[in-house]
Amino acid sequence: MRRMSAPQTSGQTTDTPVVAAARRAQTAAAALAPAPRSTRDAALEAIARALTDGTEAIVAANADDIARARAAGTPESIVDRLTLTPERIERIAADVRDVVGLPDPVGQVQRGSTLPNGLELRQIRVPLGVVGIVYEARPNVTVDAAALCLKSGNAVLLRGSSSAHASNTALVAVLRDAVQEAGLPADVVQLVPGESRESVTELMRARGLVDVLIPRGGASLIRTVVEGSTVPVIETGTGNCHVYIDEAADLDSALEILVNSKAQRPSVCNAAETVLVHAGIADTFLPRALDALTAAGVTVHGDDAWQKAGEAAGTKVLPAGEQDWAEEYLSYDIAAAVVPSLDAAVEHIRTWSSGHTEAVVTRDTAAARRFTALVDAAAVMVNASTRFTDGSQFGFGAEIGISTQKLHARGPMGLPELTSTKYVITGEGHVRG
Amino acid sequence: MRRMSAPQTSGQTTDTPVVAAARRAQTAAAALAPAPRSTRDAALEAIARALTDGTEAIVAANADDIARARAAGTPESIVDRLTLTPERIERIAADVRDVVGLPDPVGQVQRGSTLPNGLELRQIRVPLGVVGIVYEARPNVTVDAAALCLKSGNAVLLRGSSSAHASNTALVAVLRDAVQEAGLPADVVQLVPGESRESVTELMRARGLVDVLIPRGGASLIRTVVEGSTVPVIETGTGNCHVYIDEAADLDSALEILVNSKAQRPSVCNAAETVLVHAGIADTFLPRALDALTAAGVTVHGDDAWQKAGEAAGTKVLPAGEQDWAEEYLSYDIAAAVVPSLDAAVEHIRTWSSGHTEAVVTRDTAAARRFTALVDAAAVMVNASTRFTDGSQFGFGAEIGISTQKLHARGPMGLPELTSTKYVITGEGHVRG
Repeated sequence: MRRMSAPQTSGQTTDTPVVAAARRAQTAAAALAPAPRSTRDAALEAIARALTDGTEAIVAANADDIARARAAGTPESIVDRLTLTPERIERIAADVRDVVGLPDPVGQVQRGSTLPNGLELRQIRVPLGVVGIVYEARPNVTVDAAALCLKSGNAVLLRGSSSAHASNTALVAVLRDAVQEAGLPADVVQLVPGESRESVTELMRARGLVDVLIPRGGASLIRTVVEGSTVPVIETGTGNCHVYIDEAADLDSALEILVNSKAQRPSVCNAAETVLVHAGIADTFLPRALDALTAAGVTVHGDDAWQKAGEAAGTKVLPAGEQDWAEEYLSYDIAAAVVPSLDAAVEHIRTWSSGHTEAVVTRDTAAARRFTALVDAAAVMVNASTRFTDGSQFGFGAEIGISTQKLHARGPMGLPELTSTKYVITGEGHVRG
Repeated sequence: MRRMSAPQTSGQTTDTPVVAAARRAQTAAAALAPAPRSTRDAALEAIARALTDGTEAIVAANADDIARARAAGTPESIVDRLTLTPERIERIAADVRDVVGLPDPVGQVQRGSTLPNGLELRQIRVPLGVVGIVYEARPNVTVDAAALCLKSGNAVLLRGSSSAHASNTALVAVLRDAVQEAGLPADVVQLVPGESRESVTELMRARGLVDVLIPRGGASLIRTVVEGSTVPVIETGTGNCHVYIDEAADLDSALEILVNSKAQRPSVCNAAETVLVHAGIADTFLPRALDALTAAGVTVHGDDAWQKAGEAAGTKVLPAGEQDWAEEYLSYDIAAAVVPSLDAAVEHIRTWSSGHTEAVVTRDTAAARRFTALVDAAAVMVNASTRFTDGSQFGFGAEIGISTQKLHARGPMGLPELTSTKYVITGEGHVRG
């Protein structure tokens, strides 16, 4: 614990339950950090086994959450996300086994050199320490996040939603037993005590005990954490993604990419929310785009040009305003505008983008180069769907989230993004002259 | 500008001067980001020339600050740090020319692969955008920071101390003219308007406009920024560094490293503040250490064992308590304790370290390995002085500060640490199935 920034150094008696949990996590993290890969992998294998063995208890606990959710009138789509079946638990266990096989980031040498004075310098990846995750609904995140943190040598503090509290409690009990069985302190995996908002606030204020906080969920949760936390935060997930169809686009390809970006899975952060079309192809492209989007069940919120095209085609186009340019619909809706140039598209994106994923469709190499140079986002797609921004798609094996901030990690975060570095400098009595 | 997080999107009329400056910086950053290295280097060359040409005006402005400082009874050591002479300005210009020669971080490909589906993935270094620096006294930081930000493609908002306001104003005027001469917007370099504390607060709240804030200065400044900022912060510089003399240390070497770590330049963050000695060598080492430290002008604040050794040697040892373990003296003072084991030293460091630099002196490879594995700090020295934690010493050419946090950058920050990354993914009509 760092004296400068940590909550009181003495007086554990005055710790709130959340601070006490964070303190235990920090102690456990110190024991975990030097553990070799074999120990961490053994713990993951034990977790996978324990999930299978504990299926009955987990499903029973999950049934309580489901019953509460239904009693509260929760929509069935949310209930479905909450639901754990033996098959789903088996898939979660398989995901944990996949994490075992991923390359170990801990101990990787990032840079190294022998300095002119003979000092040997190495920059080595080390665990961050204590990672806090604040997330909503889906209880599979409990296991996924714990597995990635454990693999990267971090203790984890899990703060799921109260709607999944029984499920999360059962899952974490299974995880802790398994971790301990592998010879690691159970406290490397903890559920944050308390279901109140206050417990999230305390977690956000545990600077010096918690090394990073990763919020995963809706925009409001993320904004709360980002704005209120003194613990460093990695902002994730808000995706107001654009597809720009350039004057030099292959229009067949543009249609496919547009529909895929919007409608293949509209509820996720890498789905497109706005289409921008170059004026030079608007007359040809807009009618085809309206057909294709309508066929995919998408409602268009368009500017004047799109509204006129809608009238001509007999397709209903709702009028779009600032609210639509700003909106992350996460539904079968898309905002649509015609722009006079690539630079105007870039300007629109600069104004409204959340910095997640932006796509250009063009056959013109100069246009592709200019778009990728000028657009500032975690991912820029050239002639590809926005839906590809994803840790698994990128070949990272798994992801803890998609960062939309610029510090530390940007885009899909895999295991290396859950580490920090340490310089180790070795001399033979070197002093500075 | 990101709608989600930026201060009002419309209504520039309601912007405070600080927010307006941040907005101008963001616009300038967008113009600077795609500028090739040749343009950025030309701007740096122009700055170096302009500093020489503008020496007279800079020295005159500096004289005002010096007069004000002396009138306010400022100690001469601080006045010296504030002073700019033609020779010092020439050295600052030479430092800018050195930055020209450093490798360009922008555009470096960090990772790259062709995915199984044929998508080409590259992770490319890009500028962060707008970097805010809040710093104290020394006006050379104004130029150093601007040069490093410009080289790495970032716009910079400089918020120096009010004691150097006239000097900083003159320097920034020179920088802005030079940057413009090279064809870049002058607003890539700006002094934050206003000398009040309120202007720092506004800078700290300009989330969405300022991408990162780097405080450089005393512990109180850093704490204020770290705790109050909604803009992401990189914590720098607090160094409560330890030297641990192991049972298996070469005692001659240990003495040299200890004295160098403490007394070669006590006012800087990589100077040692505490020495921990293994009990097995205390009887031999403590008297020698007291001699050497006293000869170097260092006052020892010791535990019982050190106080006894002091009595035996006729050397005054002040009693040490928690306050001393926590203290970053930045003076000719050192806290001193005897520990029963390497693990006890690690535990002491874990409790009190600020995570900057920790050193072990030992001839035992197992002890060195255990110390480097267990101690969690930006830099761990084996048989070398703590004073080596420094961007220039590490061969980075220059540094914008020494990060003591774990996210984004840890240890001396060079040009790569002033960048983020962007994934560029190129396909030929790829959609997700």
